[in-house]
Amino acid sequence: MMGRNGKGRILALCGGVGGAKLALGLAQIASELLTVAVNTGDDFTHLGLHISPDLDTVLYTLAGLADPLKGWGRAKETWNFMAALKQVGDEDWFQLGDMDLALHVERTRRLSSGETLSAITRIFSKKLGIIADIVPMSDDPVRTQVVTDKGILPFQHYFVRERCSPQVKSIVFAGAEKAALSEGFSAALNDPDLAAIIICPSNPYLSIDPLLSLSGVKEGLAGSPAPVIAVSPLIHGQAIKGPTVKIMAELEVSPNALSIARHYGDLLDGFVVDDKDEDVLAPLNAMGLETRAVSIHMQSLDDRIALASCVLDFANDIRISRNA
Amino acid sequence: MMGRNGKGRILALCGGVGGAKLALGLAQIASELLTVAVNTGDDFTHLGLHISPDLDTVLYTLAGLADPLKGWGRAKETWNFMAALKQVGDEDWFQLGDMDLALHVERTRRLSSGETLSAITRIFSKKLGIIADIVPMSDDPVRTQVVTDKGILPFQHYFVRERCSPQVKSIVFAGAEKAALSEGFSAALNDPDLAAIIICPSNPYLSIDPLLSLSGVKEGLAGSPAPVIAVSPLIHGQAIKGPTVKIMAELEVSPNALSIARHYGDLLDGFVVDDKDEDVLAPLNAMGLETRAVSIHMQSLDDRIALASCVLDFANDIRISRNA
Repeated sequence: MMGRNGKGRILALCGGVGGAKLALGLAQIASELLTVAVNTGDDFTHLGLHISPDLDTVLYTLAGLADPLKGWGRAKETWNFMAALKQVGDEDWFQLGDMDLALHVERTRRLSSGETLSAITRIFSKKLGIIADIVPMSDDPVRTQVVTDKGILPFQHYFVRERCSPQVKSIVFAGAEKAALSEGFSAALNDPDLAAIIICPSNPYLSIDPLLSLSGVKEGLAGSPAPVIAVSPLIHGQAIKGPTVKIMAELEVSPNALSIARHYGDLLDGFVVDDKDEDVLAPLNAMGLETRAVSIHMQSLDDRIALASCVLDFANDIRISRNA
Repeated sequence: MMGRNGKGRILALCGGVGGAKLALGLAQIASELLTVAVNTGDDFTHLGLHISPDLDTVLYTLAGLADPLKGWGRAKETWNFMAALKQVGDEDWFQLGDMDLALHVERTRRLSSGETLSAITRIFSKKLGIIADIVPMSDDPVRTQVVTDKGILPFQHYFVRERCSPQVKSIVFAGAEKAALSEGFSAALNDPDLAAIIICPSNPYLSIDPLLSLSGVKEGLAGSPAPVIAVSPLIHGQAIKGPTVKIMAELEVSPNALSIARHYGDLLDGFVVDDKDEDVLAPLNAMGLETRAVSIHMQSLDDRIALASCVLDFANDIRISRNA
């Protein structure tokens, strides 16, 4: 049984940039207890290479290799491959840094030889000195497709090639109905001693919904003894980065933290909003949610650790109040 | 019919570094008439990428992009991919520069989508501003394998991973009996107006023999109206670069220009040796070969052009004497 100190495992559901920041904070506090289940709906094959953008962002972030400004890719990256590719090829809309490319080439090579994405991610984590358990949500292909006014676009075409400019009508996760949870995700989700499930502040529609779309995940969240806590990806109606607000407007949802909480609905036990958004606390409480209002703008490493610490304390408090 | 001015096509058989130098000289004089048929026996799949080392060396050399010191790879290359690969992977014995990698990735992508190596090479040539016609010897796989005291090694394992240290017993070209000549090679070889066939100063055993091993090539050389001229890859018993002399010793052949001429045998009409090797002229003439002795050490671009010019004049002289 779970003790008050919360030494059970922590499961974080995570997309790319924003989510990875909180995952880093969690890893700084409790790397040996942490499983980060990462969205692979953005994965795609480009130039014959299997690219897993969110997995790479989480790997680079937890390894201390991430570009601190861009939020994706590697620090001190160089772009000589891209320059040479432009000389001989046409498919140059997706930026591949010289160092970043090494993971894509090595991952593709290993996948071709029959290794699973989980096994490859474990190897990369180990080689990069990461202690937390980073797992793809599934080893089966799930492909996020964005239904827009310009047609159905594979995620990266929408996100990178078209720079999120088409109007989003809906989002589908092709393959999700058939995809099995990765062993690591499934084990963490069904761990009877799980201490917390944290939905990181990634884009709910593009980055978290793919995880939730997999068979057994919603049931796992509902059945887990661990409190399920989401951190809002919006501060006062604005995302730090990315098209969340634009997409919410296109989906005719008010772009604020309350809408995010409603989107996750009954899955949540607690919701963390920015302290600039205290006006949503009352309606959140009215939904039956426990709440915290703190600064969720993670600019420094200390910010990431502080937010992670707050979220873990919050989970602990919910567990204690349940057991009281 | 061929005129005295020799405006017919020129066919060069070429391997990597040494051969590419002469090919560049030829391209400087007669790029629009030149077909360079390149050894693909060194091609291999590495990290899932199709790598064509000799084709790339010829492409880079004729595009003015080659590393002037190494002789292979690109000038101003960077190695950040390799550094990152060493962090996450094990297969790091073959050096892949960041810019060089672009050709491997794009070539692999196009091959996977069903394009031929010839078509891809044509596209790369065009994009890199090369006027001469660079063609792989075949679009079918031919793989040079070196039979050594350490077993049978794929060419790159022998050449790069083992640094040519195993003792060579023989060399085989797997697939050669089934491989068809590429259309470009076949068309040039069988051109009734061909002005010259030039065997570039590449390693005869490793780089030229793969071309000669293909069905129809020896017959094509014998039946062509064009003089067949080889340029010695040795100067006074030494190769400028590479394991030619070591291999000759292991094959129990005297490491000198005369042995090279004997190796090509009846295929040749003329043989160009270095002016330091004038002692071999009499035995070469006794074999029935026309000869030239000039400086064949190509250090500068002018050296390359001068040797190319000499070879073309030599071919012209042989044609004139035949028609006299």
